Amino acid sequence: MKEKDIHSLIFRTFSQGKNVVVGPGDDCAAIDIGGGKLFLMAVDQIVSEVHYVSGSTSASEAAVKLINRNLSDIAAMGGDPAFALLTIATKYADSRWITGFLRSIQKEASKWKISICGGDVSSTAKDVTVCTLTIAGWVDKKRICLRKGAEAGDFLYATGSFGNSFNSGHHLKFVPRIEPAKFLAGKYTHCMIDVSDGLLSDAGRICESSKVSLVLNQSSIPLRKGANIRSALSEGEDYELIFAVNPSKSAELERKWPFKKIKLTRIGTFVPGRKGSIFGTGMNLISSAGRTGYEHFKS
Amino acid sequence: MKEKDIHSLIFRTFSQGKNVVVGPGDDCAAIDIGGGKLFLMAVDQIVSEVHYVSGSTSASEAAVKLINRNLSDIAAMGGDPAFALLTIATKYADSRWITGFLRSIQKEASKWKISICGGDVSSTAKDVTVCTLTIAGWVDKKRICLRKGAEAGDFLYATGSFGNSFNSGHHLKFVPRIEPAKFLAGKYTHCMIDVSDGLLSDAGRICESSKVSLVLNQSSIPLRKGANIRSALSEGEDYELIFAVNPSKSAELERKWPFKKIKLTRIGTFVPGRKGSIFGTGMNLISSAGRTGYEHFKS
Repeated sequence: MKEKDIHSLIFRTFSQGKNVVVGPGDDCAAIDIGGGKLFLMAVDQIVSEVHYVSGSTSASEAAVKLINRNLSDIAAMGGDPAFALLTIATKYADSRWITGFLRSIQKEASKWKISICGGDVSSTAKDVTVCTLTIAGWVDKKRICLRKGAEAGDFLYATGSFGNSFNSGHHLKFVPRIEPAKFLAGKYTHCMIDVSDGLLSDAGRICESSKVSLVLNQSSIPLRKGANIRSALSEGEDYELIFAVNPSKSAELERKWPFKKIKLTRIGTFVPGRKGSIFGTGMNLISSAGRTGYEHFKS
Repeated sequence: MKEKDIHSLIFRTFSQGKNVVVGPGDDCAAIDIGGGKLFLMAVDQIVSEVHYVSGSTSASEAAVKLINRNLSDIAAMGGDPAFALLTIATKYADSRWITGFLRSIQKEASKWKISICGGDVSSTAKDVTVCTLTIAGWVDKKRICLRKGAEAGDFLYATGSFGNSFNSGHHLKFVPRIEPAKFLAGKYTHCMIDVSDGLLSDAGRICESSKVSLVLNQSSIPLRKGANIRSALSEGEDYELIFAVNPSKSAELERKWPFKKIKLTRIGTFVPGRKGSIFGTGMNLISSAGRTGYEHFKS
């Protein structure tokens, strides 16, 4: 099975209770547990030789990547992280690796006042390490950002720059965009995603969920050092935010953007077209609906 | 590292916010998010060739085991399950296996009205499958059951029977003791654990957390078909509840126990002795403090 088939099977198979406001298919699940806030939950994993290379990635780098990938999902919803659970499955419980891994998880968690309040440890039969982190947090009901909600005419904005994430090591040391997301959520946007699978792929998810298409101004996309437009569009692991902004709020957003070290760039405009296509500025088709990013499975 | 060393490193490394009422080291984490209930969270994993045998365990059996192990943790706290997240890391995304696995997870989740509201799928570089389920739920603040709280003089009770779980297939088809736990929690006990690592090991955890010792009446322990006392004490994977009951409530509990198909047996008495030792009825030492059950790691 391809990942897409597994996802579609998940959507068909799992039924949601009525207090599940957002179920599978967005960056986090959002649950209404009463009051003005929604409870957010997401889980992510890092697998040796898939998400990091054992020989060249330190335990600390792997840990930082794991927790920050999850935090990026909380950011994409406009939320605040609060609690986490950790699992480790590994063949050899190497003392140095595990100590470095746990300490780095705690170090990152401290930055965001997250309590790592539970977990599980297991062995594996072969030399594969799989670690998961479940993150939970909160978002104001009125501020939650989803993949759906972009309208034709809205601008697409991006934080930071794109491409060359693997070779530059960005994927191991990025800062999750929690603070920018909280500034944006509810006030400037209700439609946001973090770019993990590639700009085209994740912008495509906004288009599909929102039933609109997008004209992308490729020449405006900020490139990370060493990146070309191809890697900026497709490589992924940028962990930047892209989000839809109504044109009436665009000037104010650019004027009030308080993050001096984080670029804010308008990179496109949503247009009518329920197919979720992405065009260049000359209306050349760059990407069709259903485009996927990194594919985990061969068949 | 041994598991015990990893756990002790976890306790030293992870610091908890003040709303974390129960952190690492009990069956679930419990978080005070306001109101009369605590939010419960736990995560468990099943690993191929560690928790099940690929060749002889079906996808459905593996799924049932995974979710029911987590539910057993919620039961041990006296709680109600509500939401879950699922991860799958596997080398070959075998369509039949994944379909069977997901459907069985949903089937079990439906029985307890649990929404599987998110998750993640990844490949692995070698033929190892690791699945995790994060379970979340609720427990009344006044009814929560912990590993600590048993007092000298309290009786130790057990649900069901013990031993021979692997060979009998019990570990793949047990029913988590959610309903009995809800009957017990707060009214008859505040100190409960589910027996996953073995009766001696898990009773020892109550003793250590509660700073008491235990006289165990070995001849009273109900044996599963094909079990001997040795496997009943040590083999684990019983997923029964053991819990402390004040003698003043013992007769009422036995009279009012409403679960006709689930045995309720008094199997011991807590005694003074902060070392957490477990004695036989002749005060012969059966088990010392710090005894661990299944050990995942060789060194």
